[in-house]
Amino acid sequence: MKIAVINETSAADRNADILTALENREHEILNVGMKKNFAQPELQYIHTGLLAALLLHLKRVDFVVGGCGTGQGFLNSVLQYPGVICGLIATPLDAWLFTQINGGNCISLRLNQGYGWASNENLNFIFDRLFSVESGCGYPPHRQEAQQESLRTLKKISKTTHKSFTGILEDLPEPIVRPAVNYPGIINILDIDSIEDLGLATAIKKYI
Amino acid sequence: MKIAVINETSAADRNADILTALENREHEILNVGMKKNFAQPELQYIHTGLLAALLLHLKRVDFVVGGCGTGQGFLNSVLQYPGVICGLIATPLDAWLFTQINGGNCISLRLNQGYGWASNENLNFIFDRLFSVESGCGYPPHRQEAQQESLRTLKKISKTTHKSFTGILEDLPEPIVRPAVNYPGIINILDIDSIEDLGLATAIKKYI
Amino acid sequence: MKIAVINETSAADRNADILTALENREHEILNVGMKKNFAQPELQYIHTGLLAALLLHLKRVDFVVGGCGTGQGFLNSVLQYPGVICGLIATPLDAWLFTQINGGNCISLRLNQGYGWASNENLNFIFDRLFSVESGCGYPPHRQEAQQESLRTLKKISKTTHKSFTGILEDLPEPIVRPAVNYPGIINILDIDSIEDLGLATAIKKYI
Amino acid sequence: MKIAVINETSAADRNADILTALENREHEILNVGMKKNFAQPELQYIHTGLLAALLLHLKRVDFVVGGCGTGQGFLNSVLQYPGVICGLIATPLDAWLFTQINGGNCISLRLNQGYGWASNENLNFIFDRLFSVESGCGYPPHRQEAQQESLRTLKKISKTTHKSFTGILEDLPEPIVRPAVNYPGIINILDIDSIEDLGLATAIKKYI
Repeated sequence: MKIAVINETSAADRNADILTALENREHEILNVGMKKNFAQPELQYIHTGLLAALLLHLKRVDFVVGGCGTGQGFLNSVLQYPGVICGLIATPLDAWLFTQINGGNCISLRLNQGYGWASNENLNFIFDRLFSVESGCGYPPHRQEAQQESLRTLKKISKTTHKSFTGILEDLPEPIVRPAVNYPGIINILDIDSIEDLGLATAIKKYI
Repeated sequence: MKIAVINETSAADRNADILTALENREHEILNVGMKKNFAQPELQYIHTGLLAALLLHLKRVDFVVGGCGTGQGFLNSVLQYPGVICGLIATPLDAWLFTQINGGNCISLRLNQGYGWASNENLNFIFDRLFSVESGCGYPPHRQEAQQESLRTLKKISKTTHKSFTGILEDLPEPIVRPAVNYPGIINILDIDSIEDLGLATAIKKYI
Repeated sequence: MKIAVINETSAADRNADILTALENREHEILNVGMKKNFAQPELQYIHTGLLAALLLHLKRVDFVVGGCGTGQGFLNSVLQYPGVICGLIATPLDAWLFTQINGGNCISLRLNQGYGWASNENLNFIFDRLFSVESGCGYPPHRQEAQQESLRTLKKISKTTHKSFTGILEDLPEPIVRPAVNYPGIINILDIDSIEDLGLATAIKKYI
Repeated sequence: MKIAVINETSAADRNADILTALENREHEILNVGMKKNFAQPELQYIHTGLLAALLLHLKRVDFVVGGCGTGQGFLNSVLQYPGVICGLIATPLDAWLFTQINGGNCISLRLNQGYGWASNENLNFIFDRLFSVESGCGYPPHRQEAQQESLRTLKKISKTTHKSFTGILEDLPEPIVRPAVNYPGIINILDIDSIEDLGLATAIKKYI
């Protein structure tokens, strides 16, 4: 899988821990967000949420590992966009259930609240479980069919309740889009010339 | 405050615990979801998410207490709609931080996973902290301004990325809307004749 | 390793979950406590604590998995005896750190409080980590020497502050010893005739 | 109540957080351990365990708040001595149940593992619940009698399995006792001349 790690400003110091915990897993890791708390240029959860959703929408990555101080900010930010299923993950059990039941493409980590000594090891344990089971298969067995059905319905709802990504990018205020798409390294990953949806490409180019 | 409690089918047996934990708090409680696991008619997190968002949008309630087995399903469901800020809340500290930092109008509780003996007391402790601090004030003090600004931006994003609620209700598939709005007691709470947005009223009436 | 599972009365219904989580680990499991809540004859944490310490003292087992409703009762009970190092273990990270830092021979599990749906899976994750690292090696590396030294000192203290096990069994009131040593199956495991310390053998025989 | 706060070396930086969380509670606080990680002179959990038990035995304090990196080291250390009931406390619910069910006179806090941003607030919530209910009353109501009976038995066991405190102090190796009783401020609190048990007074004086 291709996984983007996207840290916002208040918990960017944890970025190195996340990268270490993702090592040796046969996944391709793109480290696209901040690496140091309150560095410049800065990404807030407002921006990392948009970036995460955009990279998923454009299939630049298959999965996003995000987060913030409590995890709730990035979670709410990324879930404003279509096509995202995001879990707030604090323990290996959370991870293991989320992959199976919710079949998500994004997680939000709690990177300041209760993040202390040995929490880097907990990240390792979380990723072990997150990637150890089949995405969206359901748990336990007798609930699998109902859960898979809910998951399919949730994806339909996401398409129905949101504008198109193009419409979203056209309408979002500049202070949300500009810092996100111009963050160092992002333009290369977006590879705008290869975006088939020309409206979306144009909407992004406006800010570059 | 006017608070709706909305349980889906897999964890509806916890409904009584939630109601007890909300007693004697000078809030008006509307218990609008399921009361018993897998009873008929049934609401899945797909339906309770819509109901929660609709009651908030119509200002029928100020706050929604929802949840599901792990909390992640309802969370993702309700966050498909505009105007919702929802936290996944497992501890009193989660609650206390979420109210201050995220100023949400909805929480999702983990009602099967790790819900055992004395977890009803934990609900009580969660509500104690959830309602003990100012919503959206920010924490800690030196981060208040930045957090309040992010919150205002998040609310704008929510309006920008979603269709209007009327458009949503017009487009959502029938198996999502019909069971939700026809759940016993909901029509009374919606009070359709008093909905000013006639398009929205019409979209709802179609299913009744 | 030879591992005894010892459940007391209030959380004995979890016994099956513990056994399942210990399967396929190449350890020999002795299931010596209760299997069903409030069955007769009954073992309270008072009794399971004594049994755990006695089996460890006599080297009938290398490790004990115990617990109670909150885990605190068995923990305090078993730690009344010499030669026991016991951790209260609720998460895989607790387990992984406890094995390395504390090098214990006993754990106490929280088997009612917060024990709900999927908590059996969490037991599995706990045992995965508990047995995955070297006992008493220390963590992290730069603290290993100091931690190993503390561990050695703790074991000396345990011998110094307690009476001998023989003295203890001679002095403990009958209602503590009798139900413990006469619990079905225990006499076989104790194999009193092979106990080299004749005083201890005599003190136990008194109650059989 | 008179409460001693006793920090060992690896998590002594949390001492200020504990003191702040104990403020304004109408308890008298004695801050007798370390205030800064790895400062000199140093107390390890070996020493803080002895100090905690000694202060409780001499009734210099009614309750001890201790801890270490994971909480397991201090827990095991203090429980080597007679007359101590100690809980490992990580959440407000842990605290609330421990006070009622176990009626302890000591808690061990997890002060490095998972101790991060806002964990100081969690300490505050823990103390709120720890001191909000009756010690040893039992929970829930229908289990009160059985739990109170177990508690009485546990206290008897503690006296039976341990040597006398005087015997213990006479036999403990010097490197355990000397750093503990000579830690700055301790001699004043011990007030050796007022110790009625002359053997115990003599055993302590030997190291001063």
